[in-house]
Amino acid sequence: MLIKDDFFEKYSDFYRGKKILITGGLGFLGSNLAIALVKLGAEVTIQDALLELYGGNTFNIEPIKDKVELHISDIRDEASVNWLVKGKDLIFHIAAQTSHVDSMTDPFSDLDMNCRGSLILLEACRRFNPAAGIVYCGTRGQYGRLEHIPVSEDHRMNPTDIYGVNKMAAEMYHFIYHRVHNIRSVSLRVNNTYGPRHQMKHGKYGILNWFIRLAMDNGTIKVFGEGSQMRDYNYVDDVTRAFIMSAACDEAWGKAFNLGSGKPVAFIDMVRIILSSAGSGKMEQVPWPKDRADIEVGDYIADFNLIEKVCGWKPEVMFDQGLKETVEFYNKHREIYFNA
Amino acid sequence: MLIKDDFFEKYSDFYRGKKILITGGLGFLGSNLAIALVKLGAEVTIQDALLELYGGNTFNIEPIKDKVELHISDIRDEASVNWLVKGKDLIFHIAAQTSHVDSMTDPFSDLDMNCRGSLILLEACRRFNPAAGIVYCGTRGQYGRLEHIPVSEDHRMNPTDIYGVNKMAAEMYHFIYHRVHNIRSVSLRVNNTYGPRHQMKHGKYGILNWFIRLAMDNGTIKVFGEGSQMRDYNYVDDVTRAFIMSAACDEAWGKAFNLGSGKPVAFIDMVRIILSSAGSGKMEQVPWPKDRADIEVGDYIADFNLIEKVCGWKPEVMFDQGLKETVEFYNKHREIYFNA
Repeated sequence: MLIKDDFFEKYSDFYRGKKILITGGLGFLGSNLAIALVKLGAEVTIQDALLELYGGNTFNIEPIKDKVELHISDIRDEASVNWLVKGKDLIFHIAAQTSHVDSMTDPFSDLDMNCRGSLILLEACRRFNPAAGIVYCGTRGQYGRLEHIPVSEDHRMNPTDIYGVNKMAAEMYHFIYHRVHNIRSVSLRVNNTYGPRHQMKHGKYGILNWFIRLAMDNGTIKVFGEGSQMRDYNYVDDVTRAFIMSAACDEAWGKAFNLGSGKPVAFIDMVRIILSSAGSGKMEQVPWPKDRADIEVGDYIADFNLIEKVCGWKPEVMFDQGLKETVEFYNKHREIYFNA
Repeated sequence: MLIKDDFFEKYSDFYRGKKILITGGLGFLGSNLAIALVKLGAEVTIQDALLELYGGNTFNIEPIKDKVELHISDIRDEASVNWLVKGKDLIFHIAAQTSHVDSMTDPFSDLDMNCRGSLILLEACRRFNPAAGIVYCGTRGQYGRLEHIPVSEDHRMNPTDIYGVNKMAAEMYHFIYHRVHNIRSVSLRVNNTYGPRHQMKHGKYGILNWFIRLAMDNGTIKVFGEGSQMRDYNYVDDVTRAFIMSAACDEAWGKAFNLGSGKPVAFIDMVRIILSSAGSGKMEQVPWPKDRADIEVGDYIADFNLIEKVCGWKPEVMFDQGLKETVEFYNKHREIYFNA
């Protein structure tokens, strides 16, 4: 883990003994967050549906498996969610359908998980635990094609795919429940994130980790078109810090925050750095496939001044440093993530 | 009907023999539209679920009952929608949950009808009739509290209730299907609308018609607070004309259009004009109830220059003229709309 000791020292007073629910807690973002929260002394309950092909994986919480309560159920299971929210101080709502392309081929599942699932959580809080604070995991996909870069939080949201629309709608639900029902909510509009504990079987939920696998397998990474579009990548530990910092910050409630790297990189350069970090693999440039071109948003560079100002967050892990840690993790656990 | 003969002359060449589906076609907007489309020579199929307390009512299509195909089914019934879209040239998608307040007490039904229902229609078109053009009935509620008035279509959408969020999400679905799947779509962001064929049993779907009933029953109209908020009202025939004109206008596809009156009126003055038109009733000013204050959006004045420029639409019916026609209609059919 690349989160420094002084971060844990700073936040352990706030989190020690806090009762916390993480939806989607066996997935990439959720499990990394759970590990950090346990280290902070929080009492962590994880809900995860372990949907096939999604990112959930019990190995993701191997280091803390005896220190968390694991509840296998679906965010769409009202009975379960009604039960799980009770008595919690904080809820990190990360469970989601997260594939842009799948949202276009199966929009109903996306709607059901991302919109209805969020409403089930919010209604559960309204009825059974209105004192809980909720950190919603939003996405840069809510913005769609940018009108200007870098993108700040007041940029128009005009998503290019069903996933983006539904994630935006669910974020708005949170802020409506915040305003009308006094259920404190904050949203992190998460950027492209990479690092340990991501599923490595396909590239639908994030191209970056999939490219890392291709490179580690000495495969060929396909770059669509010129690969000149600018992207902004965060190492997962920096996203974990943002979750932890925003939930501990009174001024954050009611706000949406962008995350970003401060070091945007061209898509094709990202591929070159991955190949170099892995020490294997090659690159091939190919034309854009239609289903990708249809929902491609162009350059993306985040302005994350707001969360820096309000919560003191900024990214700390450099791209090459994060990649080194990531390659080491998957080399060590190749059997689990690549072959299982 | 206050639509002029030359309008029908102008549009009958386009509409004669056109196969048209109206979802929610027994309701207020849908039935008025159906009557005009039949007069234009279109072959109209109506889908309506006749949900209890909603605006659907077979009497609404009494004048055309032998000239339309009536199909009682729900927009959420995939089998039915898949069947109904086949062979249609145009689809007016009006079926919806339309109560702001109900969307806050039962957000799941709102989500199911407004989002899932729209996706069912769009998927049906994608699979079985991608050549159909769809006119989506959007709402001013998509904007939420305005940052500036008059509101033009590029104003930020920041809805204050679940209804507004879901109507906005569904509009975005239409434009995504337009762009990605070439299913032509246009959205009318409909204003407060009044006129014949509105349900008159409660005020949840539009306060204006409910006030007309209260006045006609010599009842008391409650005005919350000062009643100084500005509002913009359209007579239903003007909305019908906008539906008909936008679907017949090649340049309209892919666009969202505001409707408006050009003559905004303070809420309390609207009440005074209704009392005068009805010739009965009284007014009482009371404090804002919490559930209304929570989702109140303040002044609303629409800029409808875009639809005027693109389709040549502008409102033609003055408020007092529309109210006179409305009061006459309900006086004639009081038994059906007030007592049945």
